[in-house]
Amino acid sequence: MFRLADLAARVGAELLGDGEVRITHADTIQDATEGAICFLANSKYRHYLPTTGASAVILRREDAAQAQVAGLISDNPYLTYARVASLLYPVADMAGGVHASAVVDPDARIDPSAWVGPCAVIGKNVELQAGVRVGPGCVVEDASVIGENSRLVANVTICSGTVIGKRVLIHPGAVIGSDGFGNANDRGAWVKVPQIGIVRVGDDVEIGANTTVDRGALRDTVIGEGVRLDNQIQIAHNVQIGAHTAIAGCAGIAGSTSIGKYCTLGGGVGISGHLEIGDNVHFSGQSLVTRSFKEPGYYSGNLPAVPNSDWRKTIARIRRLESVMQRLSALEKQVMNQNTDNDAAEQD
Amino acid sequence: MFRLADLAARVGAELLGDGEVRITHADTIQDATEGAICFLANSKYRHYLPTTGASAVILRREDAAQAQVAGLISDNPYLTYARVASLLYPVADMAGGVHASAVVDPDARIDPSAWVGPCAVIGKNVELQAGVRVGPGCVVEDASVIGENSRLVANVTICSGTVIGKRVLIHPGAVIGSDGFGNANDRGAWVKVPQIGIVRVGDDVEIGANTTVDRGALRDTVIGEGVRLDNQIQIAHNVQIGAHTAIAGCAGIAGSTSIGKYCTLGGGVGISGHLEIGDNVHFSGQSLVTRSFKEPGYYSGNLPAVPNSDWRKTIARIRRLESVMQRLSALEKQVMNQNTDNDAAEQD
Amino acid sequence: MFRLADLAARVGAELLGDGEVRITHADTIQDATEGAICFLANSKYRHYLPTTGASAVILRREDAAQAQVAGLISDNPYLTYARVASLLYPVADMAGGVHASAVVDPDARIDPSAWVGPCAVIGKNVELQAGVRVGPGCVVEDASVIGENSRLVANVTICSGTVIGKRVLIHPGAVIGSDGFGNANDRGAWVKVPQIGIVRVGDDVEIGANTTVDRGALRDTVIGEGVRLDNQIQIAHNVQIGAHTAIAGCAGIAGSTSIGKYCTLGGGVGISGHLEIGDNVHFSGQSLVTRSFKEPGYYSGNLPAVPNSDWRKTIARIRRLESVMQRLSALEKQVMNQNTDNDAAEQD
Repeated sequence: MFRLADLAARVGAELLGDGEVRITHADTIQDATEGAICFLANSKYRHYLPTTGASAVILRREDAAQAQVAGLISDNPYLTYARVASLLYPVADMAGGVHASAVVDPDARIDPSAWVGPCAVIGKNVELQAGVRVGPGCVVEDASVIGENSRLVANVTICSGTVIGKRVLIHPGAVIGSDGFGNANDRGAWVKVPQIGIVRVGDDVEIGANTTVDRGALRDTVIGEGVRLDNQIQIAHNVQIGAHTAIAGCAGIAGSTSIGKYCTLGGGVGISGHLEIGDNVHFSGQSLVTRSFKEPGYYSGNLPAVPNSDWRKTIARIRRLESVMQRLSALEKQVMNQNTDNDAAEQD
Repeated sequence: MFRLADLAARVGAELLGDGEVRITHADTIQDATEGAICFLANSKYRHYLPTTGASAVILRREDAAQAQVAGLISDNPYLTYARVASLLYPVADMAGGVHASAVVDPDARIDPSAWVGPCAVIGKNVELQAGVRVGPGCVVEDASVIGENSRLVANVTICSGTVIGKRVLIHPGAVIGSDGFGNANDRGAWVKVPQIGIVRVGDDVEIGANTTVDRGALRDTVIGEGVRLDNQIQIAHNVQIGAHTAIAGCAGIAGSTSIGKYCTLGGGVGISGHLEIGDNVHFSGQSLVTRSFKEPGYYSGNLPAVPNSDWRKTIARIRRLESVMQRLSALEKQVMNQNTDNDAAEQD
Repeated sequence: MFRLADLAARVGAELLGDGEVRITHADTIQDATEGAICFLANSKYRHYLPTTGASAVILRREDAAQAQVAGLISDNPYLTYARVASLLYPVADMAGGVHASAVVDPDARIDPSAWVGPCAVIGKNVELQAGVRVGPGCVVEDASVIGENSRLVANVTICSGTVIGKRVLIHPGAVIGSDGFGNANDRGAWVKVPQIGIVRVGDDVEIGANTTVDRGALRDTVIGEGVRLDNQIQIAHNVQIGAHTAIAGCAGIAGSTSIGKYCTLGGGVGISGHLEIGDNVHFSGQSLVTRSFKEPGYYSGNLPAVPNSDWRKTIARIRRLESVMQRLSALEKQVMNQNTDNDAAEQD
C-alpha cells in the first residue's frame, strides 16, 4: 500500500488533490474500485473519467479538471502508470541457489546470487552472472553467458555460445541461438551449411514466448539494447536489430537484414533477406517488405478484410484491369480519330 | 472390437445392413480394408463408395443405396465418425500419482487421481483437480488451477495464476499466461508495463502445439468454453474469445480485441487490437482485420497466388491505376466538349 | 587447421595458388583475416575480392583472375564452402549413455551408442538407434523410433508413434506428432476427432526451432527425405512433403495438402488444405495458395509495402475501380452513339 503523495514523489509526477489517499492496486478506469489507481492515456476512455470508482487517476493536465478523485498529473500517463505499477507489483526477490533437480555442469560459473530452478540444465562453461534467474525446464547450452539480473522464465532454450546482456527477460518457449537456415544446393539435394556465428542480445531486451532467434552463419545475429520482441517472432541468421526497436507478434525477418533503431513492426510483418531498414521506420501489420527502406517513415502494403461479396468483386475488377486498359486505349484512339475527322470536316 | 450394431446404438446412428459386422479400426474410404469403418462426408470422395474395402461406411441416407457394405446412416457423418473413433481409440486410463523425477512444491494441492509425469514442475499453491494429467517436462507456475480431467501433453508452460477449466487439452510447447506486450515509451526507450491480469481458459477447450496466450495487462485474457485453437497461434493480452470459436494455425489476435461465439478464423488471419468481432463471423485465411465486424458473415481480404508473370502484370496495372483514372477523366472531358461542339454545330 | 591443398582434395575442388596456406577458420569475405577461408558466391560481394584479408577464397573460375590470395575453384562456391566448413567445424563426437537425470522407460530400446541428455524423458517402447542424440529437456513419447545418427537438440517433443529417419536434425522447441486440428461440429459445439495417424520423417531432414508437424488424422503425415523446414512452421495433419523441398520460416500448410519434390516456399507462405502442389513449384514469401498448382513454375500473390501515403491512394483507387468501369462503359456507349450520329450525318 502506498500514499498517493509517496507515489507522486517516487515516479516524479505532480499530485492532484489529496495526497493521503491509499493506493493498494491498479485497475482499468472503467472497472476500478476503492484503493485502485488507474490511468487515462487514450481519449476513447475519457468518458469514464467523471464516474470512475478509482481512488486516483493518472492523467494529463488538460483532463485534470474533469477528475472527481485524486490523481497524478503527467505528460505521459501510460509511462507514469508503468512506473507506478512497477512499485505496486515489484518483481519478487529470490534467493540465489541451484535446485536439487537442476543439472549444472561442473565447469559452469554460477554467481552465488543466481538462481537455477527445477529441472533446468546448465552446460559446460556457461556463465550466470549476479542475480540471474533460470526458471524451470530451461536449457542453457555450453559457453553461453547470461548477464546480471536477466531472467529466463521457463522452458527457454539458449543454444551454445549465446551472449545475453543485463536485465534481459525471456519468456517461455523462446529459443535463442538455434541454427540458421543455411543450405547449399547439390543437384537438387540440400547440404547443410554449418552455422558458426552466435546470437548477441543487448541489455534491457525483452523476448516473447515461443519467439526464435537464429545464430549467425559466420558472424553474429545481434539484438540491440532495449529491443522488444513479442511472441511467435522469427529472427533469422545474421539479422541486426537496432536499439529500442519493437516488433509485434508473428513477424518474421529473413537472413542478413538489418533494421535500424526506434523502428516498429506490426504483427505478422515479413521482411525479406539482405535488406537495410533505416532508423525510425514503421511498418503496419502484415506488411511484406521486399526492398530496403532507409528513410524514416510509415510503410504499408496490406489489404484490409471486407465482406466476402465485396471482396470477390474487387478481385474480379483487379483481374479485368487489363481489359479496362485496352478499352481505354481503343477509346482514346477512336476519339482522337473523330477529332481529326471533325477537324477535317470543319476545314471542308 | 465392436459389433456394428453396438456402435450404432452407442453413437445413436441408424444401422444399414448387417449389424454383426466386426469393426476393429477406422480408415479412409479409399484405403480401408476388412475390419475398418470409414466415413463419407465430402462428396468429392463419393466415387470411392462402391468399391471401398471397408467393412462399414458412415454416410448420409441419400448415399446409402450406393453402399456395397454395411453402414451407419447419419445426418452428420463426420460427427458420427468422431464418436465412433472415440470408442475405437479411447484415451488410455492412467493411474494417479507423481513421478519420482517431478518437482512438486509442498504447498501445491494435487488430487490423488491426478498424474504428474517425469521432469514436470508444479509451483506453489497450484491446484491440480481430479483426473488431471500433467505430462513430461511441463511447468505449472505458482497459484495456477487446472480443472478436472484436463491434460497438458508435454513441455507445456502454464504461467503463474492461470485458471484452466475442465476437460481442457493443451498440446506440447504451448505457453499460457506469458506476459503481454505492454510497453510505455520514455523518449524512445521502452519501459515495461507490469502485466498483472491472468488467463482464464473455459471448459472443453483445446489449444494447439506452440500456441501462446498472454495474460491480461490489468484484467484477464479469456478463452471461452469449447474454443478450438490450432498450432502456432498468438493471442495477445486482454483478448476475449467467445465460446465455440475455432481458430486455425498461425493466426494472431492483437491486444484487447474481443471475438464472439461460433466464429471461425482461417490460417494466418491477423486481427488488430481493440476491435470488436461479433458472433458467427468468419474470416478466410490470411485476412487482415483492421476494423470491427459486428454483423455475422464471411469476410476476406487476401489475394491468391498466381503465376509470377501474371502477378507482375497485375502489380504493374495496379500501379498504373492513377494514370488510367487521369486518362479516363481527360477522355470524358474531350467527349463532352465534342458533344458540345456537335450540338453547337447542329444548331448552326 | 588444414593445408589448403588438403581441403581441395577433401572437397574435390581445384586448387588456386599456394596449397601450403594454412586455414584455421571460416569468415565472410569482407571481415576475413589471416587463417580464414571465405567464399564468393553472390556477385554483389565481388568488389571485396581484391582486398579481402582472407588466406583463401572459394570462387568461380571466372573470378579467379581477380583473387590476390590463394583459393579453391568451384562451379558452386557456396556448396564447396558448406563442405569446407563441415571439415573446419565438425559436429563433436559424443559418447553414448543416459544421463542420470534422464527418465527412460524400462521397455525403451536404447542403442549403447545413443546419448540421452539431462532431464530428457523417453517413453515406453521407444527405439533410439545407433548414434542418436536426445538433448536436454526433450520428450520422446511411447513407441516412437529415432533413426541412426539423428539428433534432437533440446526441449524437442516427439509425440507417440512418430517415426524419424536417419541423420535427421531437429532444433529446440519443435513438436512432431501433435494432434491434428480435427473437429466435427455438433450444432455449434466442436467434437474432437481422434487423430490416429502418425508422422513419418524421412532421412536427412532438418526441422527448425518451434516448428510443429501434426500427426495424421487416419493415415500419416509424411516429410520426405532431405526436406528442410525452417523455424516457426506449421504442418497440419495428413500433409505430404516431397523430397528435397525447402520451406522458409513462418509458413503454414493446411491439412491433407500434398507438396511435390524440389519445391521452395518463401517465408510466411500459407497453403490451403486438400490441394496438390507439383514438383519444382516455387512460391514467393507471404503468398496465399488457394488452388492446386501442378505445373513447375514460380507463383506469387503478395503486395510489397510502399510509403503509407502511396498505399492509401492505391487502396482508394482499387475501391474506385467499379466507378472507373462504369464511367468507361458509359463513355464507350457515348462515343459509339456519336460515331453513329456522325455516320448518319455524313450520309445526310
